[in-house]
Amino acid sequence: MESNSVSPMPELAPIAEFDKTPPTPPEDTIPMDDLPPPPTVVTVANNSVEQEAETHRHYEEENEWGCGSWLEYTMVVVLASVLLLGSLALTLFWVIYYHNGFAWREDLSKQFNLHPVLMVAGFITFSGFSILLYRICRCCRRIYVKLLHTVFHALSIPCVAIGFMAVLDTHNLKRPEAIPNFYSLHSWIGLVTMGLFAIQFVVGFFSFLVLLCCEGATSAFRAALVPIHASFGLTTFMLAIAACVTGLTEKVIFTLGNSYSRMPEEGIIVNAIGMSLIALAILIGYILQRDEFRFRAHVLIRSGDL
Amino acid sequence: MESNSVSPMPELAPIAEFDKTPPTPPEDTIPMDDLPPPPTVVTVANNSVEQEAETHRHYEEENEWGCGSWLEYTMVVVLASVLLLGSLALTLFWVIYYHNGFAWREDLSKQFNLHPVLMVAGFITFSGFSILLYRICRCCRRIYVKLLHTVFHALSIPCVAIGFMAVLDTHNLKRPEAIPNFYSLHSWIGLVTMGLFAIQFVVGFFSFLVLLCCEGATSAFRAALVPIHASFGLTTFMLAIAACVTGLTEKVIFTLGNSYSRMPEEGIIVNAIGMSLIALAILIGYILQRDEFRFRAHVLIRSGDL
Ligand code: HEM
Ligand code: HEM
Repeated sequence: MESNSVSPMPELAPIAEFDKTPPTPPEDTIPMDDLPPPPTVVTVANNSVEQEAETHRHYEEENEWGCGSWLEYTMVVVLASVLLLGSLALTLFWVIYYHNGFAWREDLSKQFNLHPVLMVAGFITFSGFSILLYRICRCCRRIYVKLLHTVFHALSIPCVAIGFMAVLDTHNLKRPEAIPNFYSLHSWIGLVTMGLFAIQFVVGFFSFLVLLCCEGATSAFRAALVPIHASFGLTTFMLAIAACVTGLTEKVIFTLGNSYSRMPEEGIIVNAIGMSLIALAILIGYILQRDEFRFRAHVLIRSGDL
Repeated sequence: MESNSVSPMPELAPIAEFDKTPPTPPEDTIPMDDLPPPPTVVTVANNSVEQEAETHRHYEEENEWGCGSWLEYTMVVVLASVLLLGSLALTLFWVIYYHNGFAWREDLSKQFNLHPVLMVAGFITFSGFSILLYRICRCCRRIYVKLLHTVFHALSIPCVAIGFMAVLDTHNLKRPEAIPNFYSLHSWIGLVTMGLFAIQFVVGFFSFLVLLCCEGATSAFRAALVPIHASFGLTTFMLAIAACVTGLTEKVIFTLGNSYSRMPEEGIIVNAIGMSLIALAILIGYILQRDEFRFRAHVLIRSGDL
């Protein structure tokens, strides 16, 4: 249930005015692991959470997490997985069944179809699972979870890049006249989302993986970055959903026009894709909050590098 | 800077295996205030944060929050306020300048204009300030902040109700033929947002205000609800933004059609409204996270009733 059953956690320095437990070993006794030593300039509250988790690190305590919580955890994680895969499947179904599938260069309208599918794959399915990983992998060593998190996000990069090129091409190669780029609210939201994603990826990669080369020296910095990274990660996910629902709205009005209001099949399918994304927004927000406040999983995240 | 300079915080029960500080007074010595006694079934981590904050409750410690943090806090709160008012002002400008202002019943297209304005006023400006309140009012008694939070959200109810009726009318009274209701992704997202808002309001009102009548007995329940209420509150705000950007996208395509891609003035104005909402999503997410993890404001929220 906790990574510590596999990888030992270094002792954390107590706060003098507060804790009367015996002093911890000096910093150089920290075992070699991917877990950082305690942050030195960290806020007091933060430190105390970790410390107290330390005190409670016994196997028998896994019972603390009752049957109801396990049931809820399982249901919520399964539901999220179903929605992450389901929204991608629905998008695929939509473009294949109603818009004749894919092509590259030969048929621009088919090339466009790559855009929604790859964007949903990259920004929703891969990124969503990458976030969920931190809740699913409850018994792996944290370095593996971190690497998997990176791999999943890295996988979404080609998706997003090709999906973006697909729509750029559709605009630029359009005849008799090219369609202008970046005119819509959707495209602006899309650009902001891709920008935030890129920043998150680069900063995360350097801070949480590359800086591990000098663990001790960078741990305070890394620990301070974790909540920021986690929060901006959730925001990026929410923005991706906003980009998707505006894109879906645009596309459905472009294709169906006024008949959208008569609720044709395709309209309902598109609305269903959008609603599964909205359900994901609610669910992922809930899962992150629940763990943050209720499960000890938050200790792993708080004390280390997400 | 903290409500505790005005209202004393009750002592919190220490965790036996962990803290060697002297025992706290029995529960019945808790002073009469709106602050709840410590939750009894709370997780250990949660308890320890509060407890440690307790230890650090001195006036001189306000310095802990350095000059840089104050500067950042001020800038971020001011920017959020500007965006909250700015997006409403832009929406007003858009419908008055490009769509001839307001009417009720006489001119359906003017009646529609009430919809975006009142929805932005209710779900963005009022609700946004209501969330920000918890960061702005750093030295008021918490019961006042709570009441103000309720009042602001209560103010958004008539806005949302009239805004909703305005668009329903536009659909139902349309001649020669009524426009169907609830066909679009936007309207579905809108319904979910209004539903979540209603649940949040009712649950929050009863739990955090009405249940104060029997403070002691309900405090554990109320404390456990705080993080859930806060997290769903942020999610509702994000969904409202998703509803707004899809609504804006619909409306701008309905009015401008293909000329949207030639970037006319109105298109840019609408995109700007959307982008200010997206900026708000990023900023509010950031502000809530920052306080949560870095300022001692999170103690107030964690330990009490939001
Ligand atoms: C997070 C996901 C997404 C991102 C980041 C994104 C990004 C973008 C960007 C940057 C453009 C502008 C390309 C240009 O102007 O040359 C664009 C265009 C477009 N996208 Fe997306 N997109 C996403 C998802 C979707 C989805 C799910 C759909 C659904 C069909 C969609 C539909 C469209 C359409 C119709 C256009 C062309 C019209 C326009 O420029 O607004 N997008 N997208
Ligand atoms: C959080 C804010 C909002 C909510 C909860 C919301 C909710 C709704 C709902 C429930 C409907 C369906 C009414 C019906 O079908 O009879 C609707 C319609 C509409 N709304 Fe909004 N709205 C919001 C903001 C906006 C904004 C900012 C605009 C911008 C112009 C907008 C534009 C429209 C349009 C054009 C319609 C009619 C077409 C349709 O049914 O999709 N909405 N809205």
